[in-house]
Amino acid sequence: MASPHSAPGFQDVLAAAARIAPHAHTTPVLRSQTLDALAGCQLHFKGEHLQRGGAFKFRGACNAVWSLTDAEAADGVVTHSSGNHGAALALAARTRGIACHVVVPDNASPAKVAAIDTYGGTLHRCQPTQAAREAACARIQAATGARLVHPYADARVIAGQGTAALELVANTGPLDALVVPISGGGLAAGSALALSGVSPATRLFLAEPASGADAAASFARGERVTGLSPDTICDGLRAEIGAPNFDLLRAAGAQVLTVDDADTLAALRLAWQRLKQLVEPSSAIALAAILQQPALFAGQRVGVILSGGNVAPGVLRLAGEAG
Amino acid sequence: MASPHSAPGFQDVLAAAARIAPHAHTTPVLRSQTLDALAGCQLHFKGEHLQRGGAFKFRGACNAVWSLTDAEAADGVVTHSSGNHGAALALAARTRGIACHVVVPDNASPAKVAAIDTYGGTLHRCQPTQAAREAACARIQAATGARLVHPYADARVIAGQGTAALELVANTGPLDALVVPISGGGLAAGSALALSGVSPATRLFLAEPASGADAAASFARGERVTGLSPDTICDGLRAEIGAPNFDLLRAAGAQVLTVDDADTLAALRLAWQRLKQLVEPSSAIALAAILQQPALFAGQRVGVILSGGNVAPGVLRLAGEAG
Repeated sequence: MASPHSAPGFQDVLAAAARIAPHAHTTPVLRSQTLDALAGCQLHFKGEHLQRGGAFKFRGACNAVWSLTDAEAADGVVTHSSGNHGAALALAARTRGIACHVVVPDNASPAKVAAIDTYGGTLHRCQPTQAAREAACARIQAATGARLVHPYADARVIAGQGTAALELVANTGPLDALVVPISGGGLAAGSALALSGVSPATRLFLAEPASGADAAASFARGERVTGLSPDTICDGLRAEIGAPNFDLLRAAGAQVLTVDDADTLAALRLAWQRLKQLVEPSSAIALAAILQQPALFAGQRVGVILSGGNVAPGVLRLAGEAG
Repeated sequence: MASPHSAPGFQDVLAAAARIAPHAHTTPVLRSQTLDALAGCQLHFKGEHLQRGGAFKFRGACNAVWSLTDAEAADGVVTHSSGNHGAALALAARTRGIACHVVVPDNASPAKVAAIDTYGGTLHRCQPTQAAREAACARIQAATGARLVHPYADARVIAGQGTAALELVANTGPLDALVVPISGGGLAAGSALALSGVSPATRLFLAEPASGADAAASFARGERVTGLSPDTICDGLRAEIGAPNFDLLRAAGAQVLTVDDADTLAALRLAWQRLKQLVEPSSAIALAAILQQPALFAGQRVGVILSGGNVAPGVLRLAGEAG
């Protein structure tokens, strides 16, 4: 079993799949003839917006929670997250009946905070800086004994996220390419591990918002670049790539494709119109990356992980609602 | 086989199911624990927004097209429709390789007209009055020999629409109640026929926009009331109930529930948030009807037909798009 800081491998993804099977949904793989025609390739969409909690994040959180021994689990888990990971960890902790502490910055979206609360997580507010988050986490760990589950730089989380690609290939058979969104790199690194075992010839592409594209800069330079400030409608993709995630993805030969928000919004509308699935911008970016680089994928069998469906208030408005 | 003007029965629904099987999708049945908890009952959503053409309409159109003899089919089909039926009939005609003429009023939505064109239908413009539509249809019938396929007051169309409820009950087993939207009454009457054969104890509820609720008025008076003018965001529900549809639904003991647009919009947002399915307002009205009458459904097994997913431009806007 992977410890939080070991380098995870394909076997850890298999173990994660078995561990989370009683709790996570096996999500459907969706197709669209119209989108295939538009993209010039065969698209296989893994519907992680239909995962529990509305995002793939539940897979990694659940694997981490159920990797703990009973003695470890007794003291609960803790994380810092302004996004889906906090809610996913709260939900995962509830499946094991243990406490979950989530440190959220003062400026976190009320909708995200409400989701953490709904799933039974205990909220701890802090200043919106990385230092304040980490200090708050350390205080909670010291006071409660709760185990830290980092959103992406954690072997158990990476292995858990890899189960989405594992399920996808189990459904589709080997793929020519897989496109996933990249932020901290948990889903991306987990996907690389899964592919190494079940579809090693698959090329892995990482779709990143063009604004503040630290993963693209890191790959270009050959070392992690930090300190860029993403300003993007993809609210799930604002973290910087983690160190173990970068190492693993570089070794796997993954390739970053950067995407402007305007193209992501156009792809979002296509996903809504054609798949009739309400995915969030951080999911649509993968489709946008394919549509803007048709030569890379022409005639191929391409997997796409629709990572989540938690559309932030303001991204989508109904007739008659204020903007 | 049902002629256009005969009274269809359960056997016609079974025949329609066999007839359209090579062409139509078997759509999934969706569940949500959150929506069940909110509604206080067990909801089984039939996903007709994932049907070909994005609505249940393809079922009836396809049954009508494939009910024709080869000699009849050779001259094509014709209809008048400002909505999904025109596109569905064009798509159905294409599955048989025959011509499809669609009379559309000058004020029809460009998006709907584009869909008819995309599916290969031949467009015929007319003044936006019932008389002009019927005259245009008659001219085309006389000139081409094309067979009329009315959007809802047609036995073949009614039987075809009934296959959605048939599939739903095949998936769920007997239901305590079924809620469907009502407009012309093709889906509603077809559902009544299907239930009579496979789940006769199921109570059938018809969800109708409160503005211009001619079906509710017709049921209250015991005879068809016409001439009301619906003003509703449910753009698929602006037709008046057809004569055969009304007779069949009255005999079946169906009950109308009227719903304000504000409640439909709230249900639409719930369907998007919880099911992650992009349905149109005319679908969400059925969920809204259940949520506003919890006592009618408490603790029961309730079917809901999500009739379509063709969201009109302007109902939904993305961040950065003009209103």
